[in-house]
This record gives sequence, C-alpha cells and structure tokens, in this order.
Amino acid sequence: MSLYTNLFYSEAARRILSDEQQLSRMLAVEAALAQAQSRTGHIPDSAAQTIAAACSVQDLDIDRLRQDTALGGNAAIPLVKQLTALVRQKDPVAAQVVHLGATSQDIVDTATVLQIRDYLHWLLPQLIRIEQRLADLTQTHRQTVMIGRTLLQQAKPITFGLKTAYWLTGVREVRRRIEQESPRLLRVQAGGAVGGRNEHITAEVVAFLAELLDLAPATPWHTQRETLVGFGASLGLLTGTLGKIGRDVSLLMQTEVAEVLEGKAAGKGGSSTMPHKRNPVTSAAILANATRVPGLISTLYATMVQEHERSAGSWHAEWETLTDIMQLTAGVVEKVIDLLTHLEVDADRMRHNLELTNGLIYAENVSLALAGKIGKAAAHELVEQACVVAVAEKRHLKDVLSGMSLPLTGLETLFTPDYSTGQSAAIIDQILAESGL
Amino acid sequence: MSLYTNLFYSEAARRILSDEQQLSRMLAVEAALAQAQSRTGHIPDSAAQTIAAACSVQDLDIDRLRQDTALGGNAAIPLVKQLTALVRQKDPVAAQVVHLGATSQDIVDTATVLQIRDYLHWLLPQLIRIEQRLADLTQTHRQTVMIGRTLLQQAKPITFGLKTAYWLTGVREVRRRIEQESPRLLRVQAGGAVGGRNEHITAEVVAFLAELLDLAPATPWHTQRETLVGFGASLGLLTGTLGKIGRDVSLLMQTEVAEVLEGKAAGKGGSSTMPHKRNPVTSAAILANATRVPGLISTLYATMVQEHERSAGSWHAEWETLTDIMQLTAGVVEKVIDLLTHLEVDADRMRHNLELTNGLIYAENVSLALAGKIGKAAAHELVEQACVVAVAEKRHLKDVLSGMSLPLTGLETLFTPDYSTGQSAAIIDQILAESGL
Amino acid sequence: MSLYTNLFYSEAARRILSDEQQLSRMLAVEAALAQAQSRTGHIPDSAAQTIAAACSVQDLDIDRLRQDTALGGNAAIPLVKQLTALVRQKDPVAAQVVHLGATSQDIVDTATVLQIRDYLHWLLPQLIRIEQRLADLTQTHRQTVMIGRTLLQQAKPITFGLKTAYWLTGVREVRRRIEQESPRLLRVQAGGAVGGRNEHITAEVVAFLAELLDLAPATPWHTQRETLVGFGASLGLLTGTLGKIGRDVSLLMQTEVAEVLEGKAAGKGGSSTMPHKRNPVTSAAILANATRVPGLISTLYATMVQEHERSAGSWHAEWETLTDIMQLTAGVVEKVIDLLTHLEVDADRMRHNLELTNGLIYAENVSLALAGKIGKAAAHELVEQACVVAVAEKRHLKDVLSGMSLPLTGLETLFTPDYSTGQSAAIIDQILAESGL
Amino acid sequence: MSLYTNLFYSEAARRILSDEQQLSRMLAVEAALAQAQSRTGHIPDSAAQTIAAACSVQDLDIDRLRQDTALGGNAAIPLVKQLTALVRQKDPVAAQVVHLGATSQDIVDTATVLQIRDYLHWLLPQLIRIEQRLADLTQTHRQTVMIGRTLLQQAKPITFGLKTAYWLTGVREVRRRIEQESPRLLRVQAGGAVGGRNEHITAEVVAFLAELLDLAPATPWHTQRETLVGFGASLGLLTGTLGKIGRDVSLLMQTEVAEVLEGKAAGKGGSSTMPHKRNPVTSAAILANATRVPGLISTLYATMVQEHERSAGSWHAEWETLTDIMQLTAGVVEKVIDLLTHLEVDADRMRHNLELTNGLIYAENVSLALAGKIGKAAAHELVEQACVVAVAEKRHLKDVLSGMSLPLTGLETLFTPDYSTGQSAAIIDQILAESGL
Repeated sequence: MSLYTNLFYSEAARRILSDEQQLSRMLAVEAALAQAQSRTGHIPDSAAQTIAAACSVQDLDIDRLRQDTALGGNAAIPLVKQLTALVRQKDPVAAQVVHLGATSQDIVDTATVLQIRDYLHWLLPQLIRIEQRLADLTQTHRQTVMIGRTLLQQAKPITFGLKTAYWLTGVREVRRRIEQESPRLLRVQAGGAVGGRNEHITAEVVAFLAELLDLAPATPWHTQRETLVGFGASLGLLTGTLGKIGRDVSLLMQTEVAEVLEGKAAGKGGSSTMPHKRNPVTSAAILANATRVPGLISTLYATMVQEHERSAGSWHAEWETLTDIMQLTAGVVEKVIDLLTHLEVDADRMRHNLELTNGLIYAENVSLALAGKIGKAAAHELVEQACVVAVAEKRHLKDVLSGMSLPLTGLETLFTPDYSTGQSAAIIDQILAESGL
Repeated sequence: MSLYTNLFYSEAARRILSDEQQLSRMLAVEAALAQAQSRTGHIPDSAAQTIAAACSVQDLDIDRLRQDTALGGNAAIPLVKQLTALVRQKDPVAAQVVHLGATSQDIVDTATVLQIRDYLHWLLPQLIRIEQRLADLTQTHRQTVMIGRTLLQQAKPITFGLKTAYWLTGVREVRRRIEQESPRLLRVQAGGAVGGRNEHITAEVVAFLAELLDLAPATPWHTQRETLVGFGASLGLLTGTLGKIGRDVSLLMQTEVAEVLEGKAAGKGGSSTMPHKRNPVTSAAILANATRVPGLISTLYATMVQEHERSAGSWHAEWETLTDIMQLTAGVVEKVIDLLTHLEVDADRMRHNLELTNGLIYAENVSLALAGKIGKAAAHELVEQACVVAVAEKRHLKDVLSGMSLPLTGLETLFTPDYSTGQSAAIIDQILAESGL
Repeated sequence: MSLYTNLFYSEAARRILSDEQQLSRMLAVEAALAQAQSRTGHIPDSAAQTIAAACSVQDLDIDRLRQDTALGGNAAIPLVKQLTALVRQKDPVAAQVVHLGATSQDIVDTATVLQIRDYLHWLLPQLIRIEQRLADLTQTHRQTVMIGRTLLQQAKPITFGLKTAYWLTGVREVRRRIEQESPRLLRVQAGGAVGGRNEHITAEVVAFLAELLDLAPATPWHTQRETLVGFGASLGLLTGTLGKIGRDVSLLMQTEVAEVLEGKAAGKGGSSTMPHKRNPVTSAAILANATRVPGLISTLYATMVQEHERSAGSWHAEWETLTDIMQLTAGVVEKVIDLLTHLEVDADRMRHNLELTNGLIYAENVSLALAGKIGKAAAHELVEQACVVAVAEKRHLKDVLSGMSLPLTGLETLFTPDYSTGQSAAIIDQILAESGL
Repeated sequence: MSLYTNLFYSEAARRILSDEQQLSRMLAVEAALAQAQSRTGHIPDSAAQTIAAACSVQDLDIDRLRQDTALGGNAAIPLVKQLTALVRQKDPVAAQVVHLGATSQDIVDTATVLQIRDYLHWLLPQLIRIEQRLADLTQTHRQTVMIGRTLLQQAKPITFGLKTAYWLTGVREVRRRIEQESPRLLRVQAGGAVGGRNEHITAEVVAFLAELLDLAPATPWHTQRETLVGFGASLGLLTGTLGKIGRDVSLLMQTEVAEVLEGKAAGKGGSSTMPHKRNPVTSAAILANATRVPGLISTLYATMVQEHERSAGSWHAEWETLTDIMQLTAGVVEKVIDLLTHLEVDADRMRHNLELTNGLIYAENVSLALAGKIGKAAAHELVEQACVVAVAEKRHLKDVLSGMSLPLTGLETLFTPDYSTGQSAAIIDQILAESGL
C-alpha cells in the first residue's frame, strides 16, 4: 500500500496478488504434489495427509520467510523449510517427503499460474461488464451526432454510439484473445531440479498434480516463458485499449469541447478556487497506468533470454514485473468501469460543436451533390471557392452557397449532421450483433 | 541498407518490406477498391479497369513521393495524387473516382496487412524448418548426456536432446500463437475519413474489397490497434524464444565449456592473432536483435493510446516501429536457421565436463539409494559429510564414499550420467509426439 | 531512405551518420593511429604516410564490406582487411603495421565518438536557434494573455510568452546538460584486444592519437558505456522536451481551441474534401519521434550489462540503437525549428477563449479582493454561491456578482485577464535574463 | 513490503521513500512556505508558527488520506485539507492561509526533491564505499593474472586488478555525473495554479522558501521535467554499470570457470541435494534489478510529453516510476557492496584457466618476437602452422614450437601470463591516480 494505492490500483486484484495469497497458492501446490505422489505410491497416504494438513499460510512465519528469501534467492526455499519443520512436528517420516523431487521453480511457477487463474476469474467478468456498458452506451447514442476528429481537428460527423462501438470492439477483441490463450497458460510446472524430472516426478505424478489443481498437465517450461510473457503482453493490449478510452474522455472533457464529463462524486476532481474545473481525475489515472505498462512489458520480454536450465536474474526479474502489470491493468479496468458507469454525455454540446466551423464540415456533402449536376471537377472548384469566402468573411458556408445560385435543391439537408454520419448506424448494428450483446 | 544489413537482417524480409513493395501493396488496395466499387455499381467498370491498369509501382516518382510525404503526413496522400494524375492521362472521368470515399489510413493499413501476409508466408515455413531441425537434433541427441545448469552452476545431468526439445517447444508455441491470431489480423481496413464510412464505402463494397484481396472483411479499426500491436508482440515472443537459443549456444561455446560450436565458415568468427578463438558471431547477432526488440515492443504498445478517430503522432510512430520489429525478427530467424544447421555438438566434451565436480553432481543419487537402507535423514547426513571431505581433499566423491563401507551396492552405477538424466527421454518423446515431427 | 525519410528525419544528420561517413571516420582513426605510432617510433614514418594516404573511403568496396561484416561480426574487421590490401599494393612493409596493436572496438568506438562530435557541431547551433526563436516569441508574447490549462481544463490566465519561456527553459537545460557532458564523451578508445593495451598501444601512443583526432585521451572503456549511453539518454531528454512543444501545439491547434496554427505551406496538412482542416502534420511528426525514442533508450540501457572484456551481443545492439536515437532526435529538432519559425499565434482567439467559462476563471480574484473586506471564509462562501448561480443560470459571474451588492469596487478590473496573470511577466524576465538571450 | 523486499530492495532507501517520509516532506514544504510568507509579510508570524507546529505526520489520518487521494488525484489535496483542519483547531485565521497561493504540484514536487536529497545523502557515500572497495581489490590484484575474455571466448591475459579498475571507472563516472547534476536538481518548485505564480508566491517568497529548505530557488518547472527524468536516467546508468559487475561475477562463478565466488553466508545460495553448487544469489538479484530498470526508464521518458500547464496522466505516471527506479537502484547498490565485500578471488584457478588452451593464447607473443628476426609475414605463417598442429594433436603450443628449431630465445618467457598483460599495470596506476583513492 502506497499513498497512491486507491488512485491507481484495484482492491480485488491486490487481494489476489497479496503475499499471503501467493504463499497460500504455493502451499496448495505442495499439498497437491504430496497427494499426487501418494496416489502413485511414491509416498505414503498418511504422509500426504499430514503434509496437506500442514499447508496453512497461518502457520508460516512470514517475516522470517522474507528474510530467508534474500539468502535462498526465491520464496520457495524458505517456504519448504518452514513447511518441513511444521510437518516434522506431526510426523518425522512425512517431513522427509515434503516437496519430494520438486524444485523451487516448480512451486513458484505453478503458484503463479494459480494466481493468474484467480485473476482471470476476476478480470473476465469485469471485461464483460465493460462491454455490456459500452453496448448500452452504443444503443443509447446510436444517433447522437457529434463531430469526428482526426489529428485533433474536426473532420466529419459521426455518432457518439459509433465511438463507443469501436471502444467495444477493442475490449472485446482483447478479451477473446485472453480467453483463447488461457488453456495454454493454465498448466502445471513440474520439472525437478534441471527440468528433466526424476523418479519422484513422473508423467503420472504430473498428471495427478494437474488434475488436483485443475490445471493442464504439461512438459516443463522452466526457461520457455512464452505463455507467461504472452499473458503480460495481452494485459498490455488491454491497458492500451482502455487507455485510448481514457484519452478520448480526457479530450472530450476539455473546457472548450465539454461533450462528455466524468461523473461527479463528492470531493472528486473539483477545486474550490477554480469552480469551473471538472478535472478528469479518473481518466488521468487510467492514462497514468496505460503510460506505465509498456515499459514493464519491455522488461518482461527482456527476461525471456534465459541461461541454460534456469537463469541467474531473468527469472527473478519476471516476478514483480508481471505482478505490477497485473496490478496496473486491474486498476485501469476498475477505473474504466467507474468512468463508463458515471459518464455524462452532453448531446446538446455535441450538436453545438458541429457548428463551430460555420458549415465547412459539410463542404463535401455539397460537392458530391453538385457533382451529379455539373461534374465532379466543376463542383469541387465551386465549393472550394465558397469555402475560401466563408473563411475569409467568417460567414456560414450555407449562406455563401445560397448566394451563388447553384443548381441544387435541398441545401438545408446537406448541412444537417444526421445526413452526414455515413454508415455509422450500419456499423454499429454489425458490431453489436458480433458482440452478442 | 546499413553497414550491418547482412549482420542483423534478412534479405527476404527486406524485400517484402521494401519501399517499392509497400507502394505496390498500396496500389493493389487502390486497384481492388475501384474494382469492388465497380462491382457494386458505384463507379463504371471502365474506370475501374483504367485505375487498376494504372496501379503500377514502376510509374511512380518515388523521390517526389518521399518529399510530398513530409507535407501530407503519410505516404497515401502523395500516392493518390500521383495515381490520379496517371489515371487522368488515360481517362479524366476515371480520375474522379480514384480512392473514392477512402481515407489515407484505409490504404496504408490494408497495405500493411498485405505485407504482413507476405511476411507470414515467408516466416511460417522458416519456423517449421527450425522446428524440424530441432526435432532432428533432439532425436540425434536423445541420449547425449550433458550437465544441466541452473543459475550458471552445474546442477544435474540432462541430455542435450532435452535442451533442444525445450527450444523446440518454445518455437512451436509461438508459431501456433501466430497461426492462431492470423485470421483476426488479416483483414481489410475501410472506414473512410472518420471511420463511419460513406455512400461509396458500404458494407457491400468492403465485402468485395476483402474478397478481391483475399482478406477478411471487418468493421473499421482505425484506432483499435489490438491486432497489429498483438502481431508485433508475438514476434517479440519469437525473438525472445530464439534469443534464448543464442544465449545458450554462446554460453556453451565458452572456451571453458566448449560443448557446442557454431559451424565454421571461411573467415567467420576467427582471429589470426588469437587462433584459439571461435567467436560466437551468429549467436551475438541473435542476441543483439533479441536485445533490441523489447524496447520496440514497448513503443508499439505506447502507440495504442490514440486520440479520437485518428491520432496525431501515435499512428505515425507505429509504422517504422512495426517494420523494425519484423526486420529484426526475420534476421533472428535466419541466423537461428544458420546456427542450428551448422551447429557442432561435442558429446565427448559434454561427458568430460560432467566430471568437473569430482562426482558431487551425483551426491543425490547416493543419498536416495542409501535412504532405502538407513533412512533419509541418516543417508543425507552421511553423504553430506562425504561431500565435505571430497571438496576439502579435492578427491572424487565416489572414492570418498568407497572408503566409508556403506551398505550400498552399485556405486559405479550411481555415478554414471546416463543413470542420472531422470525422465529426459520420456519428456523428449512426449515433445516430439506433440510436435508431430 | 524509407518512404518516411523526409517526414521523420533530418537530411543533415543522415549525412553525418551515413555508412560512407562512418567508414570515413573509421579510416581517420586508422590513419591517426599509424601517425601516432610513427611519432613514438613504433612504426616507420614512411609506413604511416602510406597508411594515411590509403585511408580513403572511395577506395573501399563497400558492398563487399557489408557482406564480410556478417562473418566478422563488426565492420572494422573487413575494413582493416581491405585497408591492408590497399596499403600492401604500395608498401608491403607498411601493410604489416596497419591497425597495429588495435582491436576492432578501438576503431569502431573512436569513429562513433568522431561522428558524435560531427553531430554535436550540427546539433548545438540548432538548439541555440530554437532557444533564440523561443526567446523572440517570449518577448513578442510577453503580454499576450491566454488561459492556462491543467489536466486539460481551463484553469487561470497566463501569457503565451510564459508558455514559450518554459519551453525555452527546457531546451536550454538539456543543451547545457549536453554541453556539460561533452568533454567526458569526446575521448579516444584504445585498449587493444582485451582492454589491457600492449607494447604498440602505449599511453604515449594514445596521447598522440588523441591529439591527432582532437579528442581527450582516456583509459579504455570497452565495456564501460556510461558516456555513450548517457549521451543517448540526454538526446532522449531533448526529444521529450521538444515533444512537449509538439503536444502543446497540437492541442492548441484543435478546431475548438485554435489559438496557434502551424504555418501554412503549399500542400501541407490540408484536405480538399475537408477545407476547414489544418492538420498539425509537423507536430504529429514531432510526437511520433518523441514516442519512439523512449523505447530505444531502454534498449540502450539494456546493453550496458556486458560480459567480461567484450560482450557477445550487447555491444552489437548498441550500434544502430544509438544511431536511431540520433536520427530521430535530429528529425525532431528540425521539425521544431520549422514549427516555431512559422508558428501563427492568434491572440484574439486566446482572448476569446478566456471568456468561455463566463467569468468563472476569475472567481478567485473576487474572492481574494473580498477577503480584505469581510474575511476570507465569508468571502469564499459568497463567491462560491455566486458561481453556483452563474453555472445554473448560464450567466456571467460578473453579472451575478454585480447584483449581490458586495462591498467591492473595481469589479471590472478583477475580471480582466491582464490583471490575472500573476507573476508571469517577472518570471519571463528572469528566464530571458538567465538565458542570456 | 513484498515477499521479495529483502531480496531486491534496500531497507535504508525504503525508509527514505516511505509514505510517512513522503508526507513528512510535504508537510515540511507547507511549513516552510508559511514561514517564508511570514518573512515577506504575506501572512502573520503567528499564523506561520501555528501552521509549522501543526505540520506533524503523526497527526495525519493516513488511511483517510489514501482514500481521498483517489478523489483528488494527488496526495497534496487531502493533505492540505487535513492540515487545514488541524490548524483551524488552533487558530481559525491561520487556517485561512495554509498552502496560500500554492498548487498541489508545488508541494508534491518540492517534497520529491527533498526525498531525492535524502536519498543522495545515503547514496553517494555508498558509491564511495564501492569505489574504495574496488580500489582495494585493484591494488590487491594488480598482478593477479587471469584470462581476458571477449565474446565469451578466452582471448589474452589481463589482471583481475584491471577488471576491477574498469568496474571502478564506471562507478566513479556515474557518481561524478550524479554529483554534477545535483545542483540543478535540488531546487524548489513554486509556480501556483498554472505556473505563473501570484501575489502570494512572489520571487521573494520563493527565495525565502528555498533558503528555509536549503534548496536552490528556481523558476517553476511544472511541465519541464528534465532534471527529474535526468536523475532517473543517471540512476539507470548506475544500475547498468553495477549490473555489469553482477554479470561478470555470475560468469566467473560458473562451475567451469570458478575464478571468483560470492562470499559464503549461512544458508546462502546452497543446496543440500546439490552440495557442489554455490549459486550466485547476490549477482542474480543485481542482474534482476538491472534488467528491470531500463523499462522503467523508458516510462519516465514517456512521461515528459506533458499537456499544457499540467498533464492529465503523465505527471501521475512519473511518481511511482521514479520511486521504483530509486528503490531498485538502492537495492543494487547494497547488493554490490555485499558482493564486493565478501568476494572470494581464486588466483590459482585463474592461473589454471590460463592453461586451458594449451598455450594458444600466447601465439601472438611468439609471432611478435619472431617477427623481429624473420619478418612479420614469415613469423605469422610459421606460428599459424604451429597452432594448427597444436590443435590437431592436442599438444601444447610451446612444445610444438620447441620442435621447430626457430631462431628464438626465451620461449618460456613468451608463454608466461605475467609477460602478457600488456599495459595493465600502467592503466591500473592511472585509474587509481584519477580516482584519488
């Protein structure tokens, strides 16, 4: 917990990734290993029961464990030591088969996978919530016209629903990616000291271990980190996708734009000395996290180039980096839910802003309509002249064109935003249909 | 081409990603767009034919195009200008419907997708080659015992085939990931100025466009870059995985280890003043590229947080970054093929190195065998004492133990590496079976 | 040269960092080495003269050199080979003392330092130009009031001159940093094969070598890359600082803000179908480069952890990474000069935008003035009430306050932006004085 | 505190950067601001005294503060609120002038600078300790010959003292860089709401504020982050430099090399089942941190491109990133001190390893000596032949040469490492002299 815990992070994710939970998952692996080895006859049933019964995080001396971690180089070494001592008090024979044939990395990696599973159980429903909320916003604002902006310039009208529909596709795609890769990710690590296993860690033991932990069995992957790094990479795609929402909202909240607002909360984002401000505090936190994740991703990638059968440093660099990515991503997810749940959309202001260019955003409408009558080149030239006049004289383009006696009917219509949103509605319908929402 | 072109890059990939090829792919998109629009009746067939016929990269003034790119901000703007001029020479009417309803990003993004497809057509067979070569090495060295090393320390025996089998799983996993995500990646971009399409870019036009280019149709993804960034991320997983091979080879080639060697080539890696050197030049190039990719990946992620309907800068930052990742990855792939094709494995030296610790690497074998006779604790204690003696007196552990009159038979066997590789053979068999190789 | 050469890069920097220039600088090092060794009597004068005369980049077979670089692992090996052959044609004895006692890295590193010096000779005057232009803008707009914005919200008035003054401090600080570190950076590398030098590379030889190249003498730094990486890091600070200018301009150019504009150029940033657009093409290029540099910086840092007396991969990863940073930085510098030279400032629009909040940005002025009469707490409460009314009834705050019969004179003044820019003028004066501009 | 706190981090640095310390430093800034404003007559002396007296971290409700930080977006907002409430209890008038004219960023940034100063007070003496220890090692091992290695291959002899001397230059250079940039770094931030200051934050107030905090006065730098990011960049140079030491030690500790060892500690790095292992646990932790810092550096750089007068997200992304860099760096520093303090150097093994190539590492010695007699070309050819024979017949090069009846005396001497370390001793002397150690 730092001063910024509540600003950047998720309480739920912090619980899943806490030290206690991490140790608890490591103990779960030790217990399952003993049980698997008793099923295969490698160790007595009674030993397995004693070991499993001793696998309680409450009985650990966590302060001591932290200190010993510095000596051993990972948390499994002191954990096994403490666990063995606890078991020995009950049954000295069982103490001899604690962690039998396993290596620290087997325990740490498998526990990490279990924590990832817990995290996914939390994450995926949150993403569905975001998608559902975005689908609702899309439905609601299917016809809410606003200006589309490219390179930060007003370009042509879209609808706000189209914007949220694209946000939706982004989240949906990343969620599906994560779901698609989960089966490969959720697997046991069991390779023994150098990854070649041994008589206590046989394929049969591993199969039972996987079954007990409800993970996939797998050949060892001590130094092949594709799935773990790939998971971090997918979370990075998620923060990037959600960061874009934060970016858009922060820009749309600008005093000069003011088309959407983060919802008010008592004491949130305001300033007593600057009463007009509505600071995008939630968007800022989203953007902060989205800014931080790419660098961590690069670190995660850098850890892949491991030495031999276990690296000296690369594996160690992976641990907190992956956790940080998971924490920052979870923070972004919660913030985006908060943002979207309370988002205020000012459709009037959106219509108002469509008029800021004095009709110039509709020039192409006129040009295209006119082309049917006098040819494209002539039409284009005439409209361009009108635009020059409109800008120079600060007049509305429609007025300028009205005075030019053009062979056109329906000028009013050409200058309406609803006429100008192209296939926005059709695209929205397709996206909603594809989302099954 | 820089001085280091041949050291770090792949000729094949450079051709696929060359300026000419990029422009050629952009022209292919313009041609297909015109043809799609003629099918739907948006433009005359004759115009489509004229446009398609004019879409030849040979007719472009590329120097001019480079200069104009600086003014327009992307390569599609001057390309369309030149193409329109070329078409106008043949048919002024057709010139009016060049690039009809499209936006620069539609052309650039779809062309990038086409280049990625070309790249995948090159890449995936190379990965299969690597896997095949690794499968061969694995078969050949299924029983070639060597020491497994963790934290850069000799630990316990494995076989060289187990090491190559794990290299194989890494490459295979990334290849499958890339294959799995390709369908989502290989899709058209067609959104018009602000992503809302228009009467010239309808769903029907897009469907034909996709069909003509043999890509998937898709709703626009101008600012949702998940698939492109995800592709870069997967290539990063590949360079990380291959980088690990380079790391291992460079370490195994150390003068003091000398278990494998990069193949000799005239003039390669040698030194006339230091005749004993066999520099791991290929591994160094692999490691260099693997070191460079993670930072580029972070940049690619950073570009995801785009503004509104098209960003000012983020999209632009993506272009060369993705290309650089593709180039560096291709270089690594070619280097690894070269490395593995000519790799020299010194099985004798591997056996020799197993003896460097004077038998200490077999201590656990003895401990386990003894445990069956006198209990684990007592066995462990006795062996530990023997180890202390062996180290202090620089004697072989087997000799020390021989002198201790232990209730053990088969001491010789316990000190053989073949006895000590655990389940290496079984794991190898499983990996080869899963690889279908 | 890629399609984007003119968009992102600087012609001047590309020349300095070209292959030809790099080889030319390497030859200059070889020539100076021979001359230094002749001064100390290590080689005959005639040999030194022959070698120096042969050090011409025109005589190299560069294509061949590129191919051989892949075998040797760096460009110095084939360079020395070709140079030796050229010398041999003139004087077989001289050929025996080419590159005497030196190692490839001595040549490559020293040549890189020479290229950096060329680059600095170009860069520093450009930075002075930027500072001068910023000083001019600051003088011109010392009193040009505009709204200050925090978290993308209108906050309180500043002047445009204050904004440009801060831009100026940023550039000035980085320039001074670069100047400060240059002496440590501009030094020879001369360590021989393993950094321990030898009888041909003595301290005396190195002193002459340094003198001839006008660099500082130094103990070898083959694997101590602090100055090179630190140089890249400083360039990163520069792109970050200049990127902030691009960010500000792109935001101030937004259609809804429109306070500054990139200067017009024929064909630049416009759109015939969207005549109102003034795309921030230059700012987008600046932002693209600024987005790309941080990832490259991280790569440069990652290369520092080198093995032993020369690394296998890390040194190699440094080469193009540093060059890319230099190229992207130079591009940003040129773009910023272009941007600032042609920047159009719309002081009227700035004043106009100050009124967008209906006077709320002046609330604190009133509050403070009133506090002197009725106490701070009471003043604050009254003004807060007035703000609530102003927002709810969409009235100007001044009107609301006027109707409240407050014990205040000079309400008009309190609502003027010129009254509200705090110490902007004083800060500007201090910054200009400190800049000596 | 995570499970890995003791493995990766420094207790001292964690104290300096703790939440309590951060809040304490923020309160110190508020106290000094009030005192400065009382000196200039902006607020009553009594108010300043009351405020200063209330600035005690013990009186804060930190849990509450964390929660409110999420609403306000930074820690200063709830801090000022709580402080004001505390002051109000003593003196309602004083409560009105708490934080007078200041903005949150003034407090947060200045407090960060104060923490950096605390950190530097800790860091710089540690670096001196490292340098001193390295100077001692260099003196001790000035003549301890060992093989120099390039591209992980044995090359030519150096001395261990030369290696440590280079480590020393790296640390010394970075320390001097940090010292050089400190004056620019250690300065107050005082800009008010939008950086333009106001009547309560005048140059005079800032001067007194700076004096009270013993920092340099400065014009505001709210969005010019060159010094802070530059500080992070320098720490990155430090971790890179120290990471190189960790890399070298981990490689030199390899079972097959075994030239140095991390010192033993009870329970450290050992394995009961693999008694021969001496895991480089400390080096692994150093390498882990060195692997993690570059990605964080890239994030820090990415935060520089801030919007307007205060960014929405970039400033926020900077906070924990800089702290993480400081924490990881401090961890590396402590680990390196531990490593160097207990480093065991095996000079015998170093000598032994010099013989692994059967004399080939001395080939050049012979070649040079022979050249004086028969010309360089002939000499080179003869020696090359001898090397081929030596390799093919696995004989010592000296033996092969002895049988060739060459016009050479002193063959024994040419094959001694002490004769072959070039200018190592002279370089060492120069480095030690330059270090003033």
